[in-house]
Order: sequence, then C-alpha cells, then structure tokens
Amino acid sequence: MTSTLLTGIGELVSFAGSDLPDVIEQAALLIDGSTVAWVGRALDAPDADEQVDLGGRTVIPGFVDSHSHLVFAGDRAAEFAARMAGEPYAAGGIRTTVAATRAATDEQLTAHVARLVQEMRRQGTTTVEIKSGYGLTTRDEARSLAIARQFTEETTFLGAHVVPDGDPAAYVDLVTGPMLDAAAPYARWIDVFCETGAFDADQARTVLAAGAARGLLPRLHANQLGHGPGVKLAAELGLHAVDHCTYLDDSDVDALRDSGTIATLLPGVEFSTRQPYPDARRLLDAGVLVALASDCNPGSSFTSSLPFCIALAVREMGMTPLEALRAATVTGAAALGRADIGTLAPGQRADLVVVDAPSHVHVAYRPGVPLIAQTWVAGRQ
Amino acid sequence: MTSTLLTGIGELVSFAGSDLPDVIEQAALLIDGSTVAWVGRALDAPDADEQVDLGGRTVIPGFVDSHSHLVFAGDRAAEFAARMAGEPYAAGGIRTTVAATRAATDEQLTAHVARLVQEMRRQGTTTVEIKSGYGLTTRDEARSLAIARQFTEETTFLGAHVVPDGDPAAYVDLVTGPMLDAAAPYARWIDVFCETGAFDADQARTVLAAGAARGLLPRLHANQLGHGPGVKLAAELGLHAVDHCTYLDDSDVDALRDSGTIATLLPGVEFSTRQPYPDARRLLDAGVLVALASDCNPGSSFTSSLPFCIALAVREMGMTPLEALRAATVTGAAALGRADIGTLAPGQRADLVVVDAPSHVHVAYRPGVPLIAQTWVAGRQ
Ligand SMILES: [Zn+2]
Ligand SMILES: [Zn+2]
Repeated sequence: MTSTLLTGIGELVSFAGSDLPDVIEQAALLIDGSTVAWVGRALDAPDADEQVDLGGRTVIPGFVDSHSHLVFAGDRAAEFAARMAGEPYAAGGIRTTVAATRAATDEQLTAHVARLVQEMRRQGTTTVEIKSGYGLTTRDEARSLAIARQFTEETTFLGAHVVPDGDPAAYVDLVTGPMLDAAAPYARWIDVFCETGAFDADQARTVLAAGAARGLLPRLHANQLGHGPGVKLAAELGLHAVDHCTYLDDSDVDALRDSGTIATLLPGVEFSTRQPYPDARRLLDAGVLVALASDCNPGSSFTSSLPFCIALAVREMGMTPLEALRAATVTGAAALGRADIGTLAPGQRADLVVVDAPSHVHVAYRPGVPLIAQTWVAGRQ
Repeated sequence: MTSTLLTGIGELVSFAGSDLPDVIEQAALLIDGSTVAWVGRALDAPDADEQVDLGGRTVIPGFVDSHSHLVFAGDRAAEFAARMAGEPYAAGGIRTTVAATRAATDEQLTAHVARLVQEMRRQGTTTVEIKSGYGLTTRDEARSLAIARQFTEETTFLGAHVVPDGDPAAYVDLVTGPMLDAAAPYARWIDVFCETGAFDADQARTVLAAGAARGLLPRLHANQLGHGPGVKLAAELGLHAVDHCTYLDDSDVDALRDSGTIATLLPGVEFSTRQPYPDARRLLDAGVLVALASDCNPGSSFTSSLPFCIALAVREMGMTPLEALRAATVTGAAALGRADIGTLAPGQRADLVVVDAPSHVHVAYRPGVPLIAQTWVAGRQ
C-alpha cells in the first residue's frame, strides 16, 4: 500500500471529536491505502511515499447523502415549471415516474443511476443512500434495489412509498409479504412514507416490523406535508433517523431529543416545491441532531448537490456554515448508522473532498458555484 | 475558416425573434468561424466540415452577466458567516475589500480576475461586465480597469461606489476629474451607486454627465437597500439598464416601462444578505424588460453562477424558466447595448452553452447542479 500525504491544506475540517479540533488550519492528512492514517498540523506531518500539495485549499469529509431516490426513469420538468407558475398540471405526480420506471429496461435504469451517482461524486458526495419506491410491484422494487446495490451498500426498500392502486390494506400485505421477500436480499434499510394520503402510523409500524423481522433497519419519511404521527413513531422506535421533519410541534422536538433520533432535513424539497423550510435552528437549540440530505428525486427535489443544500440550510434554516457541513457529513453518516465515514481521523475511510476555497465557509458563501475540486473515495481520487 | 455543425440537439433556445421560434426541438446549429451561420431543425441542416453530436442535450445562448465586481482582493467569509448568524461584525464592510485591493499587486489582482472569469466560463457565462470600485483612488481605479480590460470589453468605471473618506463633494470632484481622466481610457461604461449613504441623485447625475462627456455610457445601481430616486433618474436619462431595483413603487415601474430601461435584478444579493427578493413578475407583467446578473462581489453576492441566479428567479421572483433564461442572455446583452450576443441566429457571435439536460427547464429544475457541459465563445470551445 502506498501512503500519500495531502499537504498545503489551508483549512481541514475533521469532525473527529475530542482528540482533534473540528477545524485545523495549515493542516496535512496522511492516507494509507484506503484509510486515513494521520491528521494534524502540517508542521507535524509524518513522512509518506507521495505528497500532494493542495495549495491552501480546504479539505472536508466527503458528503454523506443519507436520503435519495435515484432509481427512476423520465423527468417531471413540465410539472415543475407548472408548479412554479402556479398552474395546475393534471398529468404530473409520482404515477408518471412509476410508469416510466416500470417501462424502462434494467440497462436504462442502471445507466441513469450511474449518471446521477457520478454527478453526485463530482459535487463531493462519497456515500449515498438510494431508495427504491418507483417500482411498486414485486418485480420492479426488487430490480430497483438490485440496481441500487451496484452503487452503494446503503440501499433502502421503500415499497411503502405510495399506494399504487387498489386497496391500501392489500398493498401493505404485498409490501410486507412477497415484495419484501424479493427486496430484502438487496436492501439494508426499510422505509415508509408516513403521511396523510400515503401510509398511517399503524401501517408504518407494520411495514417497519416486517422489515425488521427480515433484518432490515427501519427509517421513516414523516411530517413533510403537514403535522403527523411519523416523527413520534420514529422516536418511539428509536430509529437512527426520521426524514423531512418540516412540521413539528414542541412534543415532536422533545421526543427527537430524548430518543437521539436524527432529524434529516431536505431543503431541496422546500426549494423546489416552494414550501416553508424546516427550522433547523429550533432543533439544534433543543439538542436534536440534524442531518442534511438531497432527497434527489424527479418530483420534489431534483438536486444532487449537497453544497446547494448547505447554502440553503445557512440562508433559510438558521444553521451556521460549520453546522450545515457537519449535518451533511458526520451526522449524515450517523443517520446511516455509520461510524467509519463522515469524519477525518485515523482509521476512518479516506473519503474526503478538496474545496477550491480558503475555508469551509465558502461552501455557503459562494452559492451555486462548483467549488469541489477533488473527491477522494477510500483513498482514491 | 472551418464550419462545424452541432447536431443531436434535443432542444435549442434561440431567442432570435420573429423568424425563429424561441425553442426549437430536434435542432442543429452551424458555426462558421466565430459566428452562427445557420440555426434550425436537424432535418434541414446544411453540410459542414465537421459535425459534433450533442446526444440530445440542450443548447442555449451563452450567459451575458451584465453586472459584476471581479477586481478585488481578499474575501469576507467571516463577515458573511456573522451576518447569517445575526451577529454584529465590526471589522466587515466594503472598506475591508478596498484596503485589500489597494494592497494587492497588479499580478495578484489579474490572477484573481482570471480565476473568477474562468469559473464563470465553466458555468456558461460567455460575456461578463466588470466594474472597478474597490480602488477609490485615481491609481487604483485606473489599474482596476486596466486589469478588467484584459478580460472583457464591457468595463465599467465605478469610482462612485462609496465615499472612501473625507468630504463627499470633494470626492465627487475627484471622481469626475483626475480619476475619470485616468479611468476613461479603459472603460466603456460609467456607474454610480445611487443610494442613501452613498451618492444622491444630484451627485449621480453629475458623475454620469462627466462620464458621458468623455464618451462613457451611463448605468446605475439604484433602489437596492430602500426606495430612492435612482430608478426614476435612470428612466429619465434613458439608460440601457438600472441595476438592483429591489424597492420600487408603481411610478418607478411605470417610468421603467415608458423609458424602455431594463431592470437588472441581482438575486444573489438577496440570497446572500437575506433581504427580500425583487418582484420580477410585477415588472414583467407591467411590460418592463428584466435582466438577471450575478453582481459577483465579495460582500453581498459572492456567486459567479448564472444558473443559480436563474433557479432563484424561478423560485423566488415569479419568473418562468424561459423568462429567467431570456433575462440572463438576450436581455443581459441588451442591458450592455449589445445586439451581437445573447441570441442564437445567423450572424450572431457563436457564444453558446451545452446544457447536460433534455430541456432548458432543467437549469431551474436542478438547482445547484453543475449542468453546463460545454461553453463555446466565438465559435470555440
Ligand atoms: Zn424521500
Ligand atoms: Zn453591484
């Protein structure tokens, strides 16, 4: 294994915890094979086989995007344009994407996921969770996850995305029965869209329990479109994370704090649907852990950019640039139950991003600008 | 001269006017040397020396960024972070940038402008206006413009950016006297920041008249921080454009419509200062021409991304994706008095952008995503 010393780092964000400060100036980082071997001040750097001088640029942990829906076909650009213009658009909605996804070949779906994962990589995302949920048949959910699995270990079975047609109870039986049987081999997680018009708390509980019985880890979409029972259910079940959290009352916030369940906020959704943003400041001040993710999907948030989500979190949600960066790295990793990524410390996987700027603040200070100069995954650029 | 046919264009946005539709599907475009020789449906395309197949991607005119302040040194990231946190930041403000700019060498300033222009180019900007205004001495304004002139014909003397110190009347005398003498050889335009705390309408009139006497074309910053006389002055003088236009009453809107003066909106400023956005819809509905520009500067809008400004215009200012694209291309060109750029029609300069998406809507539909695959300037990629 070759060791590589990244040096000339103007600022390094470690998020490593007590031994290292969160932000180290004039830093260096040693990569040995696929892991971080050493992090510290450049003056103290050890020898290495190779050196890379980053010319004063900033190094941060690779982004961990803990919530995306990349397995789909088609787009909904016309629906987006109509929504922005305040016009009705009868043909739109998730059913359009479900129909296009079912009609696509495996090769088409795989190529599309590859393209989006590559796009994310160029923007600094080194780990992405990918959900199914646009198949909604046993065959199409299983193949969606089989395709997702080619790109990430963090695959999530979301058969309970919406009831495609017919009787909701019968659909829950399908999701928890044959569909789960077919999906489970390819999935690490199971998820339910717990919202009025989708699945209620009892149905969500049933689906998550069935998944847990098959060894899948539970997570939830909740409280996106209005206040509902999903966030409290997530806290009660002690989930790693509950996602959206746009509409919360004080008891929801208390429940999240007490359970340690992470609130994953998805501001690309609010940007793209012109809904009010969740209040990250309120959550942080209450002691709730906050993650940021893209929710990349063709209906409500077709951004793949965590730098963009960070800029929104600072502008719209009351987070500091460092809090937003933490939410998109180490807390995103925790939302996936991962301790090996999201921080830069000895022993961690060498997933890191070189930002073409003198400090991490620039990610929010320079909105929309493609500042990601290099993305390293497991020690390779 | 070699002719190159761009073919396989899924959608081409021409903005060429009556002969061609604004949006052509399944299109092709012929470049001959530095100009567009032909635009139309792929089926009708003429022969060419070379062909480039764009694989269904979208072609739009290159962005014309009619308002930027790229000649400066240093940054104000800490001031930005403090502002976002609602904290006071005594050391900040334009004076920080003025001091850093004066202290920088020509080589440093030139390298910094080159870097930002290159960054803009990667994001699809093919023409950028660059202002002085962080020198505020005769020497530093003149050298700022001499440097800007290396990168664009569209240079603007903005000695009247702020009164650096001392007596405002004496400073106006300097700006309209020795500073103008030194700056004029390098400038095409003259600009004044007409706002409470900067220059009043009489001072603005004096500065613009002095510039006009030297052959410089007048433009204005106005009505950014509150309602003021600047927009009506711009209309009265029949300026090409007046920039910011955040605070307008009905008589301002009427004056802009009647004069044909373009309102250049700069939503990066409102994003980065958390101010309310200007109401583009109101202006468009009243028949006012609207341009979009970045205002790229280290204090109030350190974005260089017109795709980001387009996404904001759609989300926050009531523009359709096509209106926002028009504002960032042909109307931006008109704001600079330029008819040779901003549209794709025979005879135009071949400044164009290949968007890695099937339609122009994606620029707003996919916020923050670096979709610009190719930027061609004067027929060269
Ligand atoms: Zn989702
Ligand atoms: Zn300006």
